[in-house]
Amino acid sequence: MGAGLVGSLLSLYLARRGHEVTVYERRADPRKAGPVEGRSINLALSDRGWRALEGVGVGDEIRRVAIPMYRRVMHDAHGNLSFQPYGQDQQAIYSVSRAGLNRTLLDLAEANPRIQLRFDQQCLGVDLRERTLALRDAGTGEQHTQPFRRLFGTDGAYSAVRAALQRTDRFNYSQSYLEYGYKELNIEAGPGGEWRLEKNALHIWPRGQYMMIALPNLDGSFNCTLFFPYEGLHSFAALQTPAQVQAFFEEVFPDVVPLMPELQQEFFQNPVGSLVTVRCFPWAFDDDVVLLGDASHAIVPFYGQGMNAGFEDCTVLNELLEQHGPDWAVIFDQFQRQRKPNADAMAELAVYNFEEMRDRVADPRFLLQKKIESKLSAQYPGQWLSLYSQVTFSHTPYAEAWQNGQRQEQIMRRLMPHIQTEADFDRADVQALIKSEMLSVEF
Amino acid sequence: MGAGLVGSLLSLYLARRGHEVTVYERRADPRKAGPVEGRSINLALSDRGWRALEGVGVGDEIRRVAIPMYRRVMHDAHGNLSFQPYGQDQQAIYSVSRAGLNRTLLDLAEANPRIQLRFDQQCLGVDLRERTLALRDAGTGEQHTQPFRRLFGTDGAYSAVRAALQRTDRFNYSQSYLEYGYKELNIEAGPGGEWRLEKNALHIWPRGQYMMIALPNLDGSFNCTLFFPYEGLHSFAALQTPAQVQAFFEEVFPDVVPLMPELQQEFFQNPVGSLVTVRCFPWAFDDDVVLLGDASHAIVPFYGQGMNAGFEDCTVLNELLEQHGPDWAVIFDQFQRQRKPNADAMAELAVYNFEEMRDRVADPRFLLQKKIESKLSAQYPGQWLSLYSQVTFSHTPYAEAWQNGQRQEQIMRRLMPHIQTEADFDRADVQALIKSEMLSVEF
Repeated sequence: MGAGLVGSLLSLYLARRGHEVTVYERRADPRKAGPVEGRSINLALSDRGWRALEGVGVGDEIRRVAIPMYRRVMHDAHGNLSFQPYGQDQQAIYSVSRAGLNRTLLDLAEANPRIQLRFDQQCLGVDLRERTLALRDAGTGEQHTQPFRRLFGTDGAYSAVRAALQRTDRFNYSQSYLEYGYKELNIEAGPGGEWRLEKNALHIWPRGQYMMIALPNLDGSFNCTLFFPYEGLHSFAALQTPAQVQAFFEEVFPDVVPLMPELQQEFFQNPVGSLVTVRCFPWAFDDDVVLLGDASHAIVPFYGQGMNAGFEDCTVLNELLEQHGPDWAVIFDQFQRQRKPNADAMAELAVYNFEEMRDRVADPRFLLQKKIESKLSAQYPGQWLSLYSQVTFSHTPYAEAWQNGQRQEQIMRRLMPHIQTEADFDRADVQALIKSEMLSVEF
Repeated sequence: MGAGLVGSLLSLYLARRGHEVTVYERRADPRKAGPVEGRSINLALSDRGWRALEGVGVGDEIRRVAIPMYRRVMHDAHGNLSFQPYGQDQQAIYSVSRAGLNRTLLDLAEANPRIQLRFDQQCLGVDLRERTLALRDAGTGEQHTQPFRRLFGTDGAYSAVRAALQRTDRFNYSQSYLEYGYKELNIEAGPGGEWRLEKNALHIWPRGQYMMIALPNLDGSFNCTLFFPYEGLHSFAALQTPAQVQAFFEEVFPDVVPLMPELQQEFFQNPVGSLVTVRCFPWAFDDDVVLLGDASHAIVPFYGQGMNAGFEDCTVLNELLEQHGPDWAVIFDQFQRQRKPNADAMAELAVYNFEEMRDRVADPRFLLQKKIESKLSAQYPGQWLSLYSQVTFSHTPYAEAWQNGQRQEQIMRRLMPHIQTEADFDRADVQALIKSEMLSVEF
């Protein structure tokens, strides 16, 4: 159930293992809606996502339409820039169009004779005992009952499949919202389709209690997202008129206002999206039903890992299918036990990174610390990999990465009081301190 | 929606203020089912509950069928007893039949010309925009749409009204289960209807990782509840045969086995209940809908406060109606802001007390500490009221009680290392310590 990013990718994995798959999707076929539709949103694809895409042979095709972003570019309130590389040399996260990626995966699924796609099929309910789905066809309005043998719930943060599991006994569940919403805005391309900000970067306007970010598109435009409190002094509630919006943006995002000619219209036309974290357990019901992706672990978008975590679910499930053959009860159980702590860690990391992006990246001491960590990483290769790199450029389980990162942070708290400039890193006393700290670091 | 304990009491409060009330209940009228039906379960009524009942003039009527329990009686694995009074002198919690109490409240509601009771009405959904309930009549199977002006969701831990709110944006929600289930068992009355354990007490068989409790009935029997892990060495999963049950009970609850002639049958006939904590926010939707009782804050039963907290909701809502007249938007908003932190504190306290009941009450040092606290309370009246007394015998908001209790616990941790016997309390050095500690205690 669900032909979004995770559902369409999962269908490809299952079909490669010889299974017949039917994919039901509530919405219409996005490929029939013309060039621009749906959530015109960009996502940051990173190593976990790439591995999952390469597992079904679609890496190169996606790479052709992905824009590498090598660093964060921070814009201060005077338009001054500062920079923070994401990793070493050629390491990057990749801006891809959510809609475009989904279409590519659906084209691949459709071309596979083992996969049937059924759009406009709303799931009204799941009978777990009878193993049937109640579906409503959006075109005809007719309802029908669809038997299933094994149901994969890939229907997103508001999953109908999960809603059925939620009514079983002892199902732990939580949905929790940030006090922040988001609004999408647009930076126009230059006259010749050129990018009016650095193309190969993720742009951040960190403002303490709120922030804006921008990711590049292929056509020279950027997708911007304002993350902003619902209530308070600076908030959606406080900006009620076009003049207020204009004045606020000119004050706090002055360098971007000239690049947003449609700002006032967009601000009042585009909806405010909410930011939810969903946790639940168990993810599986016997060997009949399992949840993947946002359906079992929706997270806030601040680490760029929502899609990557969902894609990694497909990688892990595929590995378990390889190991355990047809023993679905074992596969589903191992899958949920292995993935649940990692999904929980990633949910925490995503909230944590919101603070980093909207606040700490504007602090020179924070940026200095990141430079020192980068030097540490170069001096102790294999022994010190930054938390960001572990999450983004490795396949280390999220929970393990988060633990490593917390240990690193403790070390940096002891080290940084001795360091005032980048050059201090090479001072003998600092190097001696580092040496003694590194004795305790085991990876 | 919901004619359980909180719903029926709330209807009486609303009617007293001149409102016309219709109460819809999913189940059949419990009064028509004969003498024994529904959840034959006993609850511990305490001061918050009594105040709410007295507010509608039904205190005396309930008091006639309530059994005061003045102390905990702990049964060890050899059948030896120890004792812990709940409060001072005549302070007690009261064993009442859930079903009996509900019937009494329904009789009162039915006798009130402003209240209409509608049983067998299942809530299939709530249209918040149109302000209508979709109801299904269990007798005829017919569905109909019922408009409402103001909807009070008192439909319990699995509330259908809350399920409608859960689909609104930014609704925070969690349901979390303990790894323990419960099973109800029965201690028979003696031949002449006499009680075969001390009547005016709550009995506990604390066994570390699990426990059994018993509350007295008017007919000489006791309702027992075994709280037991689902899985593990000693667990429901481990007791699969009548012989295993018998052997286990004889080993760990030897004094009670002779009083339970139906043990083996009951153990396999009675279902295992699950233990859920439900948290959510907001509790209100505009001035149209509000949740009360378990619908907004279901808790585990270990502090005996589930019903009392729900009844206190009625007291608080009634006070706000008194203060704010017809301004329902303000009333609902104040209600949820005032009650939410208290409901959260009570949920924590309830889980905390499970540990105390199943484990700490078997520890002589713990019982000594409780005796010392009782002496402190007598020596400093008004300045030291035990956490249990604040929760059970006062109307101090739960959150405040919990904070006070945590401060007291810190003081006791400093004091107890100096105290080996009850008599040590009067030693000059201990009294000096107490005097200095009490300087910092402000209530």
